[in-house]
Formats: sequence, C-alpha cells, structure tokens
Amino acid sequence: MSRTARYEIKVQWSDCDAAQHLYYPNYFRLFDSATHNLMEQAGFPLLDIFRNYEVMGMPIVDAQASYRAPCVWGDQLEVESRVSEWRNKSFVVSHTIWKGDTVMAEGREIRICAYHHPDDPERMVAGLMPPEIKASLEEDGGAAS
Amino acid sequence: MSRTARYEIKVQWSDCDAAQHLYYPNYFRLFDSATHNLMEQAGFPLLDIFRNYEVMGMPIVDAQASYRAPCVWGDQLEVESRVSEWRNKSFVVSHTIWKGDTVMAEGREIRICAYHHPDDPERMVAGLMPPEIKASLEEDGGAAS
Amino acid sequence: MSRTARYEIKVQWSDCDAAQHLYYPNYFRLFDSATHNLMEQAGFPLLDIFRNYEVMGMPIVDAQASYRAPCVWGDQLEVESRVSEWRNKSFVVSHTIWKGDTVMAEGREIRICAYHHPDDPERMVAGLMPPEIKASLEEDGGAAS
Amino acid sequence: MSRTARYEIKVQWSDCDAAQHLYYPNYFRLFDSATHNLMEQAGFPLLDIFRNYEVMGMPIVDAQASYRAPCVWGDQLEVESRVSEWRNKSFVVSHTIWKGDTVMAEGREIRICAYHHPDDPERMVAGLMPPEIKASLEEDGGAAS
Repeated sequence: MSRTARYEIKVQWSDCDAAQHLYYPNYFRLFDSATHNLMEQAGFPLLDIFRNYEVMGMPIVDAQASYRAPCVWGDQLEVESRVSEWRNKSFVVSHTIWKGDTVMAEGREIRICAYHHPDDPERMVAGLMPPEIKASLEEDGGAAS
Repeated sequence: MSRTARYEIKVQWSDCDAAQHLYYPNYFRLFDSATHNLMEQAGFPLLDIFRNYEVMGMPIVDAQASYRAPCVWGDQLEVESRVSEWRNKSFVVSHTIWKGDTVMAEGREIRICAYHHPDDPERMVAGLMPPEIKASLEEDGGAAS
Repeated sequence: MSRTARYEIKVQWSDCDAAQHLYYPNYFRLFDSATHNLMEQAGFPLLDIFRNYEVMGMPIVDAQASYRAPCVWGDQLEVESRVSEWRNKSFVVSHTIWKGDTVMAEGREIRICAYHHPDDPERMVAGLMPPEIKASLEEDGGAAS
Repeated sequence: MSRTARYEIKVQWSDCDAAQHLYYPNYFRLFDSATHNLMEQAGFPLLDIFRNYEVMGMPIVDAQASYRAPCVWGDQLEVESRVSEWRNKSFVVSHTIWKGDTVMAEGREIRICAYHHPDDPERMVAGLMPPEIKASLEEDGGAAS
C-alpha cells in the first residue's frame, strides 16, 4: 500500500454551480490540490521539487472522475489520494472524495514527470520520477491529515 | 452521424494556470459550455428544457479528458461536440478540442436526464430523454458554429 | 469594535494566474468565503439564515479591493473580516488579508439583506438585518479562527 | 474621448453561483478579459507587449465594481472599456457591462505598467506606459467589437 494523504475541504458558495452542487470541473481542482498535498505529505512540495530538481512540472495527460452523489454548499469533504500505479513514463494518482463514511466521487489523474527537452528548453519531455521522491510516495506513511 | 456542434473560445488569461497553460479542470468548463451549445444548436437550450419539460437537469455522472498538447493564453480553440452514445439511463457527449487542424484534447461527459423523484421532489431519478430532443440530437444537422 | 472573524487559506496552484500570483478576482472569492465564515462565527451560517428567516440572500451591491503585494502559490493567508458599517439599507463587510504580519490586500463588500418582494417572490427587496443577527455581528466576540 | 472597446460574452452555467446569478468575483474576470481585448483593439495585445517591450505585466493595484442588476445564466452581455484616466504611475480602466440598453454593472481597475527592477529582476517597479501604446489608447478609435 502506498502513501495515502488526506486533504480536507469545506465546499464554499464559490465552488457551487447554479444547481447548488459542487460544480463538476471543480472536483478536478480538488484532485489537483490533493495531489499537491500528497507531495507535501511525502516531504516533497512541488515548489521545492521545481527548485531542487530539473523537473519542470507534473502535467496531467489524462483525468477522469465518477460522480456518485452531489456535494453541496457547506459539505465538509476529505480527499484521499495516493499514487496507485507507476507506468513507464507516467504515474496514476487516485483520489476518493469522502463525506463522512460516504464516497461522493472517485477519480484519477495520469501525470508525467516533465523535464526540459535537451534541445529546446521551452519544450517538455517525460522522464523518470527522482528515486527518493518515488520511494517516499511508495512508502506506507499512513494517512496523515 | 449525429448532430455535431462547434463552440469557439479564445483562451483568456483567467483560464490559465501558473504554468501559463489552460488549467486542466477548465477543459471541463469548456466541455460543459460546449454541451450547452450543442443543446442550443439542436433547438433545445437547457433553460427552455427546464421550463417546458419535467427535466430537472442533465448532471454528469462521469467525465474524462485526454490532454494531447498544452493550450496557452491567446489560443483560439474550437470544441466539436456530439452525443456519441445513447445508453439505457445515460448518454455520452464526446468533445474534441481543436486548434486549427490539431487536436489539443479529447474527452467525454456521461450525463443523465434527471427528473424529480415521484416520492421526493428534492431527489432526482434518471429517465429517458424526451423523444423530440433525442431525435434532434441524432439528426445530422451538419456542423454549425 | 465589532465581531472579527479570521479565515485561513493556503494559496493553491488553481488560484494563481499565469504570472504565478493569486489571480486578482480570486481575492473576492476569499472575501466571499470570509464573509460566510464571519456569519458562521456569529452563530448564523447563511444556510441556516435562508432556512429560518425570510432572507433570500445577502447579495453584493459594491465590492472593492486594494492590492498591496502579490500573494503567490503556497502562501498561507488569513482574512480578517468584520462588519465595519451599518447603513440604512446595506452593510459594509471589511476584509484585510494578512500573510504573517504583512497586509497583502484590503477590501470591502457592500451587501444588502434581501427579502422576497411582497408582490413578486422572484424579485428581491433590501430590508433590515434580523436584530439578533445584527447584535451578534456587533458583539466583540474576539477573533476566533 | 479615449479609445473604447467592446467585449461580448454570454453568461455560461460555469460563471453562475448557487443563486443562479453571475458570481460576483467573475465580473472582475470579465473586466480583466475586457482590458486584454482593449489592448488588442489598440493594436498592442499584452502578449506582444511582453515580448517587444521591457514591460513585465500590467498588474492591478485596485479594483472596484458596482452591481446594478443581477446577470443570469444565458445573458448576452457587452463590456465597454476604456482608459479613463492617466495618473503619475498608474492608469484607470473603466468598464461598463451592458445587457442591451441596460447597465448591469460598472467598475474600474487601477493598473500599473510594471518593469523589472534594475537591481532585482524578480521585483517589479511601476513605470510609464510606452508612448505609442498610450497614444493608441487615447485615440478615439470608435467602438469596435
């Protein structure tokens, strides 16, 4: 079992759509913030990674969400996140959104670890995650809030 | 071939993230607006559907996007959208984001046609799309902008 | 001195613009969430007000912000909020955004307490804040987080 | 009379809040996009300015909006924008949001023309707008859409 992080959020008025539900693209904002939180929990905030490694970013190449029940204004939610799969040139971050004991939504982001292209620093190429970062994400650090 | 609608958008500063790319959840905002545009092109703006039918909404039960190339500030994009599949209690809206002749992203929304639950008007139940709306979405209306 | 509430927020990647600064309209999202938090601290979450009073909403009629220094990705901010003025048919909520001891931005929202128009329930009219809510907002409750 | 630009926008579902109104911070997104459009109409898109001049950006130091009537989902709006005042180290962009012949909102952004600080390229200093850009913004170019 890999490191699992929990990211808490209260649904704000500003997050809701005209049906008074958490607007569906905003679940991906939660996923994104939850991934950043996971990196922090692993001891490698993205800001530090950008400063200390050649890594340019960890852009998304694919994203998906399944919506089980509508989240509404004022809901207190928890996003549970972990790297669920390491592929050749990408990795999968899985997210589950909980309201108490109920799963409200599930989804995943497929991200790459992007480096500057050797011939054109403006372009990105997918590369391997630095080994110490990968190790920390694989480590069962328990679920810290 | 079902009705295909085109929705044009210019990427604004406000749509971009700190990497100067169209922020990845905002592609789903585009998909959502493009679906609204498709309904309009079909002669059934959602606002009219809500007024004239028992339909409460067409909420998303699943959404997915594949990102091929980053869209950046100032890009002139076109979202091409159509209902690609009718399922028992849901339907799939497929979207392709073009920049000129290049596919920048592809994705789909699985939506339901939601009605008030007979016993509890606050709850929703999935039902069939009203036949005249379905017929218009199936019709090859060409690609109107 | 009226009740002062504090709302904590960490600037997320999703809040930033392509200059890597907290995008300027998003300061108003913070103000809005901070006002909701102030109402909660006062013992009257807006959701409860809508349920228990004839109040339809507390819409903004005017909003203003002064930006002193850019907030950036990862900044831990605190929004300090209070009702600074009661006018005839409106009230002013003042907000100060702090990063540690530094004021990053200041602003205010002028809001009305809106009721259903007696002749047309779809329309709103400005009315007086219910006295117990006003009293709680005027009370020096200290600065709870 | 200075150059006046018009920026058209249709209010999308994604722009609305849970009261089904254009969410109040989103008016500032419109102002921002309308300012970008004004610069384009003047012949100086911001992207070109950043490339061709030493200008780092035109950040906002103050923003304000008055809300007259709620804009709702599906509204077709027009933002009319012009530089209404040149100050010593800043300039004021005034915006009026029209729905047909009705003013829905008015506001202004106070922006600076920011240059790299000579001693620290990460910092910004306010400077003069390049004269040919200022001249074009002052020119009565009529109201182009």
